[in-house]
Amino acid sequence: MAKTRIGILGYGNLGRGVELSCRQNDDMELVALFTRRDPASVKPLTEGVAVYSADDLAAHRDDIDVLVICGGSANDLPEQTPACARLFNVVDSFDTHANIPTHFANVDAAAQEAGTVAVISAGWDPGMFSLARLYATSILPEGADYTFWGRGVSQGHSDAIRRIEGVADARQYTVPVPEALEAVRAGEMPELTTRQKHTRECFVVAKEGADKAAIEKAIVEMPNYFADYDTTVTFITQEELDRDHAGIPHGGSVIRSGATGANGEHTHVIEYSLKLDSNPEFTGSVLVACARAAHRLSQEGQKGCKTLFDIPPAYLSAASAEDLRAHLL
Amino acid sequence: MAKTRIGILGYGNLGRGVELSCRQNDDMELVALFTRRDPASVKPLTEGVAVYSADDLAAHRDDIDVLVICGGSANDLPEQTPACARLFNVVDSFDTHANIPTHFANVDAAAQEAGTVAVISAGWDPGMFSLARLYATSILPEGADYTFWGRGVSQGHSDAIRRIEGVADARQYTVPVPEALEAVRAGEMPELTTRQKHTRECFVVAKEGADKAAIEKAIVEMPNYFADYDTTVTFITQEELDRDHAGIPHGGSVIRSGATGANGEHTHVIEYSLKLDSNPEFTGSVLVACARAAHRLSQEGQKGCKTLFDIPPAYLSAASAEDLRAHLL
Repeated sequence: MAKTRIGILGYGNLGRGVELSCRQNDDMELVALFTRRDPASVKPLTEGVAVYSADDLAAHRDDIDVLVICGGSANDLPEQTPACARLFNVVDSFDTHANIPTHFANVDAAAQEAGTVAVISAGWDPGMFSLARLYATSILPEGADYTFWGRGVSQGHSDAIRRIEGVADARQYTVPVPEALEAVRAGEMPELTTRQKHTRECFVVAKEGADKAAIEKAIVEMPNYFADYDTTVTFITQEELDRDHAGIPHGGSVIRSGATGANGEHTHVIEYSLKLDSNPEFTGSVLVACARAAHRLSQEGQKGCKTLFDIPPAYLSAASAEDLRAHLL
Repeated sequence: MAKTRIGILGYGNLGRGVELSCRQNDDMELVALFTRRDPASVKPLTEGVAVYSADDLAAHRDDIDVLVICGGSANDLPEQTPACARLFNVVDSFDTHANIPTHFANVDAAAQEAGTVAVISAGWDPGMFSLARLYATSILPEGADYTFWGRGVSQGHSDAIRRIEGVADARQYTVPVPEALEAVRAGEMPELTTRQKHTRECFVVAKEGADKAAIEKAIVEMPNYFADYDTTVTFITQEELDRDHAGIPHGGSVIRSGATGANGEHTHVIEYSLKLDSNPEFTGSVLVACARAAHRLSQEGQKGCKTLFDIPPAYLSAASAEDLRAHLL
């Protein structure tokens, strides 16, 4: 069977996660990396993978079945995904929830016109957590759902701290409040404020001579990022940060509890949870499964923008429908 | 929008679960129950629902969009589902895992010929647990998965005890072994025997003068059902059984742990778990969501046998694709 030929656009943490996932899937073949840096400066982990300039994407149209776009949601993907969908089947992990409808519309227009398949917002949230919310809500229409994130590193919040004057480096962990998790898991359907659901733990390396009190105040009062949360700030050395906080773990839980019965007398709790040692490697693994699905949908003659909501689950698997029914159903 | 007109074949615990779920879904309308009993003896919970003999199914072909078949997997569904798929779009909860390929083939032949859609093996295992296994395995191909059932009532095991001489009534709970669950959740990927994964708790009402020692021996040594497990037998009165064990709770967890990275250095744990107050009402709720999907697939011109593996998740929801992307993705 011919392998699905994968290209990666953008070779940071996520791009490397996609690369490593391709190695675990025999039906996938990573053929090329595309970068905005000098291609000569990029060394893939995998031998035999070509590195090209992102400017040369169009020249490789026939060499690649699916391009996995590993840019950022804020500035890269809104441009890259529609542009690339004019050339390739694509997959991205666009994760700015509020802007998904706009991104979908832009990508769909490009993919419909080009006759390609574009899977957007694949990852774990949006992605696997979205699926958990959709299935649970469809089964238990009378109920409430809750998404908890963490304990894990939020790159966005870590970056926000690093932009404060006097900060040399920082790592921010999002942490679910144990009492809130417990009440939700017990099917109590509590109403929870932002502050009641998560706390934020910040580990900060201050520059020499910096005003630590001012840094702490700037963090805990920062609107959107920290002001609505109980936030703790711990100053540590760069050595401690490098030693104890080098990983990029994350995870969380989607929990829906709902009632059935003649009078809602029976409570059910559905929980989907993830504990991830490496956020980018897990997200990369979801992207590769979606690349498999994108290629299949395209081979069937489908086109346009899709999300995991539109993809029959079997399309994500390398196994045949017969095998899946016999062994996983 | 026209509602999906639902018929139910078989009005036991599961049939009532489907009936109650229809009431929670505004786009569903339960129009008729079909029973092998005397229709005059069956009183639906819902006013205005017609009750017909199962012999009269064919006469109601045009009144029903999807027939939800609520028979047993051992004796009813292998006959009923193919026969009914010749007349209606159907959904069943066939749960004899080993026989799914045969059941699929029989139902598919009937549905292909009749041009209907038949969704089989919908429920929580097979069903939601199968989806959890499929998604997790597709994302983390290098890993191991584990399914734990319980704490919950096994109807099959309870029935097996009731067939023993001297037993008046019984309730059997399947219980996961906490240490096994803990090791799996920690990503240790242990190899576990049947005995190491679950224990079985039996609550038994003995007939007057029955030999309790003989009953206990017959239970714990029963092949397939109990011999491979650590089984405890507790004799109680009928009053205690009725008071403390009237419910039909169940649940469990599907856990996959897998590794990613250049050398498998990162571990990820995916867990999907259910805590259900009422097994038949939850299963009924899954069947109704699948009935919605069956109707949509049929309206699109699809035909043949499907499982949850083949159904785009969005088809299970009453909400529009736009709403789902805006609010759940």
